[in-house]
Amino acid sequence: MIYADNAATTRMSDGALDTFVTLAKETYGNPSSLYSIGQRAKEVLEKAREDIAAVIGAGPREITFTSGGSEADNQAILSAAALGERKGKKHILSSAFEHHAVLHTLEKLKKQGFEVTLLDVHEDGLVRPEEVARAIREDTCLVTIMYANNEIGTIQPIREIGAICRERGVLFHTDAVQAVGHLPIDVEAENIDLLSASAHKFHGPKGVGFLYARKGTLLTSLIEGGAQERGKRAGTENLPGIASMAKALQEASQSMERNAEYLTSKRDRLIAGLGAIPHSALNGDAVRRLPGNVSFCFEGIEGESLLLLLDDKGIQASSGSACTSGSLDPSHVLLAIGRVHDVAHGSLRLTIGEDITDEEVETIIRSVAETVEYLRSFSPVWRDLMSGKSSFIL
Amino acid sequence: MIYADNAATTRMSDGALDTFVTLAKETYGNPSSLYSIGQRAKEVLEKAREDIAAVIGAGPREITFTSGGSEADNQAILSAAALGERKGKKHILSSAFEHHAVLHTLEKLKKQGFEVTLLDVHEDGLVRPEEVARAIREDTCLVTIMYANNEIGTIQPIREIGAICRERGVLFHTDAVQAVGHLPIDVEAENIDLLSASAHKFHGPKGVGFLYARKGTLLTSLIEGGAQERGKRAGTENLPGIASMAKALQEASQSMERNAEYLTSKRDRLIAGLGAIPHSALNGDAVRRLPGNVSFCFEGIEGESLLLLLDDKGIQASSGSACTSGSLDPSHVLLAIGRVHDVAHGSLRLTIGEDITDEEVETIIRSVAETVEYLRSFSPVWRDLMSGKSSFIL
Repeated sequence: MIYADNAATTRMSDGALDTFVTLAKETYGNPSSLYSIGQRAKEVLEKAREDIAAVIGAGPREITFTSGGSEADNQAILSAAALGERKGKKHILSSAFEHHAVLHTLEKLKKQGFEVTLLDVHEDGLVRPEEVARAIREDTCLVTIMYANNEIGTIQPIREIGAICRERGVLFHTDAVQAVGHLPIDVEAENIDLLSASAHKFHGPKGVGFLYARKGTLLTSLIEGGAQERGKRAGTENLPGIASMAKALQEASQSMERNAEYLTSKRDRLIAGLGAIPHSALNGDAVRRLPGNVSFCFEGIEGESLLLLLDDKGIQASSGSACTSGSLDPSHVLLAIGRVHDVAHGSLRLTIGEDITDEEVETIIRSVAETVEYLRSFSPVWRDLMSGKSSFIL
Repeated sequence: MIYADNAATTRMSDGALDTFVTLAKETYGNPSSLYSIGQRAKEVLEKAREDIAAVIGAGPREITFTSGGSEADNQAILSAAALGERKGKKHILSSAFEHHAVLHTLEKLKKQGFEVTLLDVHEDGLVRPEEVARAIREDTCLVTIMYANNEIGTIQPIREIGAICRERGVLFHTDAVQAVGHLPIDVEAENIDLLSASAHKFHGPKGVGFLYARKGTLLTSLIEGGAQERGKRAGTENLPGIASMAKALQEASQSMERNAEYLTSKRDRLIAGLGAIPHSALNGDAVRRLPGNVSFCFEGIEGESLLLLLDDKGIQASSGSACTSGSLDPSHVLLAIGRVHDVAHGSLRLTIGEDITDEEVETIIRSVAETVEYLRSFSPVWRDLMSGKSSFIL
């Protein structure tokens, strides 16, 4: 089996799983308890916080543990909105191809009287800093732009956007769920005020994530109750999960450069191989993208059929985000970068892991090429394209 | 070591941990993905949902997975409030000794114009159904009463309260975090519309829980994003955690009767043994309480000192809820059942597990008696009591 859907979720690393098991067995005390096993749990919790903070250049008190990236996105945006509202600032600037955890939270805020501007994304899958600068208004309380897109993998000019936000005195949040553990991040140098991350995207456990909030950026509780996480996130701390996340992030951080180099070379071979399929196109910039992300559109086919046939061949990929795979609508990300409906339907996302081999890369290229050709052989859309009844776009 | 703080958190069972590890290793796919490893994950997810539903007499579609009991409490109450608001009903009835996940959510709703009535709790730690009936108003949209109290373990007359709510057409939520896996629950027979549970209270993993919502009771999303959990709870499903919770709940359910009988006999021996300490008192009804819960107040001492000294003797207990252990205020639960401040400060909660032995029970009794006597030997409060300067309450 070739697992090429690491953007949807990753397998826990052995180190992360070992950490989980050891803590579940030995340090099961409640970190809020006074006795020794609880206090040991508390120490492990705070060590995890320090380790995670260090990876992104933050201080430990700036890290709040959550149940994952979606919760962190929700809390970050609602917190910034609450801070904005107090000052009478009710405008939020974002982009059209954010994750739904961001877009749906913004929809909720619109119902509460907030105004939201979604910037267009260019065909290269990149937001333009100068457009961010132009769109910031007197009443803008938040700019939220994702670090790297979850479908097409394009890496946004975060440092430039951060600098603009800082200059204009606007809070800057980035959904960095696809970036943390894969790209070097420095919240100081990049002027990031709020950042969301999810452990299962970097070989940590599912159901755990964190929210970085710059010192002085008051968080609003999404989940009320006990005084855990300095009163900003109630619920008994998921210590095995949190420490396992810290372990996975440390591992990812230590091998980040080597992984990125390796994955980039495999990615580029995949892009070249799949690009040789007629009437295909890479989605998003070829260089400013995540090391492991390959996203293509193939004219005249349905992405879903492609996925199912690839699965038969032992290749596990996706057409876009797993979060929306139940839906028949084409990806909002592909539409945002200007793909028309028909083309957007024929999409394939391969997100490879560090353990992929050259042989597997070649297997993927061959399998995709064969399957696309096979699907086109009985596609009415393809027939119309070939006969000139309709025109090729790609 | 004698771990006697199972109400704060439990150790994962071997079966639950094995389930977690197996799934993390083998079925790591995203349940929302189309390919085979994702579909296998989806099957495991739905099997877990069926198994959990069956334990409380619900249907699988009535179960929504959450990150724990606090999230479930928050979502249940906010959902009921949203439903009430649409009908112009903005009154909620609860009790003074609920968990903070309930009380703080109610505080949030008060700021949004809801009116909240907190029923008094009697000295026996029980809410009276007739008082619930009297307090329900025309504009009451929700009654939320916990199944069993987290500090003093008293089991509320849920079936009677459920019947009243049903008759009056008011939604009924119960925070059953301390009850699920320990007491037989039947949401049909007990007329429960919304119920919150947390896996780590019944030997499942931390960071996982569920919310039961009767068919037709529309949930409001707390966490927006992907379409997971039928659009009611976004975020990649924590499959290993969820299946591990289902396993733990099945185990707890299968041995519930045997465990209850065993724990009740040990609990009653502890109550008798600690009750022999002069000027001590059991908190809450001696019979209508969780099988493993022993909660005492000792006059003339500080609960925190007692805990620390017991910890030195290898006994891990608590004074009340772990969620509030950072606070110097006496427990709101003990105040609610009429304990005065000084007495409430000298509290001890022992929540024993199924693996406790007779020898350990005797060790606890002897250690607590010795420690209470030692602490009283240099307590100025105790000196005043003994000299008649102040009067004994217990």
